[in-house]
Amino acid sequence: MKETFIKTIENVDLNEPIFIEALPGIGHVGKLVAEHMIHELNAVKFAELYSPAFPPQVFVDENGIIEPMKNEFYYLKSHGEDNRDYIILVGNTQGLSPEGQYEICSAIIDFVGKHGVKQIYTLGGLGTGQPVDKPKVFGAATTKELAEMLKGHNVTLRTADGGIIGASGLILGLGMSNDMMGVCLMGETPGYFIDAEASKAVLTILQKILKVELDIAKLEERAEETRKMISKAQQMEKEMSDRMNIIQGEEDLRYIG
Amino acid sequence: MKETFIKTIENVDLNEPIFIEALPGIGHVGKLVAEHMIHELNAVKFAELYSPAFPPQVFVDENGIIEPMKNEFYYLKSHGEDNRDYIILVGNTQGLSPEGQYEICSAIIDFVGKHGVKQIYTLGGLGTGQPVDKPKVFGAATTKELAEMLKGHNVTLRTADGGIIGASGLILGLGMSNDMMGVCLMGETPGYFIDAEASKAVLTILQKILKVELDIAKLEERAEETRKMISKAQQMEKEMSDRMNIIQGEEDLRYIG
Amino acid sequence: MKETFIKTIENVDLNEPIFIEALPGIGHVGKLVAEHMIHELNAVKFAELYSPAFPPQVFVDENGIIEPMKNEFYYLKSHGEDNRDYIILVGNTQGLSPEGQYEICSAIIDFVGKHGVKQIYTLGGLGTGQPVDKPKVFGAATTKELAEMLKGHNVTLRTADGGIIGASGLILGLGMSNDMMGVCLMGETPGYFIDAEASKAVLTILQKILKVELDIAKLEERAEETRKMISKAQQMEKEMSDRMNIIQGEEDLRYIG
Amino acid sequence: MKETFIKTIENVDLNEPIFIEALPGIGHVGKLVAEHMIHELNAVKFAELYSPAFPPQVFVDENGIIEPMKNEFYYLKSHGEDNRDYIILVGNTQGLSPEGQYEICSAIIDFVGKHGVKQIYTLGGLGTGQPVDKPKVFGAATTKELAEMLKGHNVTLRTADGGIIGASGLILGLGMSNDMMGVCLMGETPGYFIDAEASKAVLTILQKILKVELDIAKLEERAEETRKMISKAQQMEKEMSDRMNIIQGEEDLRYIG
Repeated sequence: MKETFIKTIENVDLNEPIFIEALPGIGHVGKLVAEHMIHELNAVKFAELYSPAFPPQVFVDENGIIEPMKNEFYYLKSHGEDNRDYIILVGNTQGLSPEGQYEICSAIIDFVGKHGVKQIYTLGGLGTGQPVDKPKVFGAATTKELAEMLKGHNVTLRTADGGIIGASGLILGLGMSNDMMGVCLMGETPGYFIDAEASKAVLTILQKILKVELDIAKLEERAEETRKMISKAQQMEKEMSDRMNIIQGEEDLRYIG
Repeated sequence: MKETFIKTIENVDLNEPIFIEALPGIGHVGKLVAEHMIHELNAVKFAELYSPAFPPQVFVDENGIIEPMKNEFYYLKSHGEDNRDYIILVGNTQGLSPEGQYEICSAIIDFVGKHGVKQIYTLGGLGTGQPVDKPKVFGAATTKELAEMLKGHNVTLRTADGGIIGASGLILGLGMSNDMMGVCLMGETPGYFIDAEASKAVLTILQKILKVELDIAKLEERAEETRKMISKAQQMEKEMSDRMNIIQGEEDLRYIG
Repeated sequence: MKETFIKTIENVDLNEPIFIEALPGIGHVGKLVAEHMIHELNAVKFAELYSPAFPPQVFVDENGIIEPMKNEFYYLKSHGEDNRDYIILVGNTQGLSPEGQYEICSAIIDFVGKHGVKQIYTLGGLGTGQPVDKPKVFGAATTKELAEMLKGHNVTLRTADGGIIGASGLILGLGMSNDMMGVCLMGETPGYFIDAEASKAVLTILQKILKVELDIAKLEERAEETRKMISKAQQMEKEMSDRMNIIQGEEDLRYIG
Repeated sequence: MKETFIKTIENVDLNEPIFIEALPGIGHVGKLVAEHMIHELNAVKFAELYSPAFPPQVFVDENGIIEPMKNEFYYLKSHGEDNRDYIILVGNTQGLSPEGQYEICSAIIDFVGKHGVKQIYTLGGLGTGQPVDKPKVFGAATTKELAEMLKGHNVTLRTADGGIIGASGLILGLGMSNDMMGVCLMGETPGYFIDAEASKAVLTILQKILKVELDIAKLEERAEETRKMISKAQQMEKEMSDRMNIIQGEEDLRYIG
């Protein structure tokens, strides 16, 4: 594997699908929304992306089974009031290096472009670093019209105070050079745990924009499970960070051969 | 996007244009000078540079509109007392990695070389880290003659005390291998805010060297606006840095999948 | 040397060999096991891997002789109760950058794939950062069947608490895309010294799984030597780290030219 | 400039030249030795190496003249008692990233290989981090015979206590794969200043090995000048490090665009 590649699982014929990107990021806000959509609407996986720009590791699931780093493309046909097709992108990682982010996001834009995508929604979290009472949804858009549309849906526009870092920003930026328009929706989140409340806020607005109906109560349930996981997650995080320190100590040992 | 590329917007025929580089750097000193020149002299954008070596992000402007990372080439025809043509390079970012800096600056030198450039001015700031009373202008040159010329314009030559880091240095270095001569002008600046005073000092000398007339008073106005932005900028900077910390904390969360 | 390459020393014809990876990692646990197997079973070196993704350095052995960074492939024919062939990978380093890890591990998977490998064992340590009384062996597998097999051999399955970082994880992940199945065995270790006790725990289980007989007492001896080296190793490590600091200080000196 | 390249200035025909590498490193020990040889023996520059793996910057000399990052190859014909030809490599920088070091050192080995080099001497410093009374010379070699030869010249062999990091190590390691033999000589140095005493120790041994006569008294003089520069150097180093901090603060400002 010398460069990013996308393995097609099913050849699908989509009609100007709407592209929803929700790779893991702050508070896993976007990821939770997209995974809920995939499960509730029975989206079908049709391609997988692998990249040497992912972290050089694998995950282990709850049964001790190894899971490689990957991004996954799902599709939906004729969905919602407008009978639109969709491509939804989720995954267990993003690119690690800046150049790697460009390589992967370019491959994604190429791929969805070939499937006729003209419109992009990228989903993420906006970390506040402090407790959030009722999460707002922040947004930005590639055109004035889309920015106005967001305001009409009670999205707070981000204005000139920093950028959008990672896949959620870069996919929109690269899309602009490929005649794709789009918006980024960011749920306000403390950022230091998996935040289902922020996900619900994003999903509530997203389904109004897309005219799609979803059982938000079920995201409640998913949220509940997630909340139970949080303390365990924090414990793991600490363990991981301890381990990383050990590995780095070990690096020096390598010099002994 | 696998490598740096330059998108031509207008084909222009220029006569040994003088190249002015002012990508963002310390105190945004060069950037302010170049943007003032572009606006006052009605320079015309004719090309844009995109690169996978830019930071993997987008900016959001004051209206919530997404702006991709890019560098922009402007031109001016038959300007100043000597009726010279000009290419001015500005942008919202520089390359992130060392190798990326080389890739981008090489692409820039190739591009301006094809337009007949033989002479380069790179503009930047020289950070002192402490308040500056009346900013001096420091300089360095690729030839003895140009160094003498700088001294004649009250530029303080930098001498053997460090190098010139980033695009302002590298573009001159790479230009030397392509038979281009040039100088770097650096306005003395505390470095921790957008410094219009340092920009005025650089512009004052630059317009004498180039025999170009510019309304420096208007840079005063621009400076005033900039100064108002400073406190906001510092606040944002803090916010950004807080957010980066959250993102990095989040990196560990990714391990949970 | 622009990319990773493998130099073949002997052309060997192997019959669906089992691949054992044991590049240096936490506590040198895997490396000790593999080196013991190589010496006790008289495995034969048949290929060497070199890579620009290795650290830019050489080692010096106990006689002042320079040893380049490399990974080494050994083979065994018709070994153990099942008369299986083996490929064993050891070395004095792993790839340094994440992209480098992918480049090297991909080259390894390509190479062993051409030799007919369908089954992989990666060996490593799991660092606890604190003293370990009686080291457990942790494991993970690419399939449910292999995970069950591990449980049957008293291996503690790792479950959803982080990933497997480095070659031991990545080789299994990349192998999965190449129809290779496999497991990772990790000996519990404090992680901050070369840990022969953890190696013995891993070897005890590995030889039962593979139905291979090895003189574990001799690993005792090797362990004894290793233990004597530990205090020297720690001293060297400190020296190395001091030197690195000096080098980094020196980096600044370079600016003086 | 997409990759490392070597610009030939003069085509020279050399007879199995001895290659001496002395790129800048700890205490500038090797660099001082090689520059002294070049000046005393009137070596002639015949090639220059440029690389995108060098730091993205330029230096400014004592007259305000810009000097690009480069490595320089000099030659000597029929020198010393044995009438040997020589190639001497000096420069103002080494590669920055690990991969860059490999790219550059591979280009160097290719280049000198084409000129018939079979024997390499790499010169450097070994930092102790504390004052050194009478600097020893440490060494390592690619063969037992060369290691014995070093011992015969009162060189202290480095033994299994760490590696040789950077060009001095890597050039020997890559040379081994190209049938070149060689040694590394390292002068003991505190490491935090330009150390002419360590250089004299290395040169004393080197000229005995090579049977070349050099005016070591003149290195005394050069040493004296160097010593005067030291306090200035340390001051600059501080200034540079302050400036780097400012630049890094500035990185955040870039987000404002």
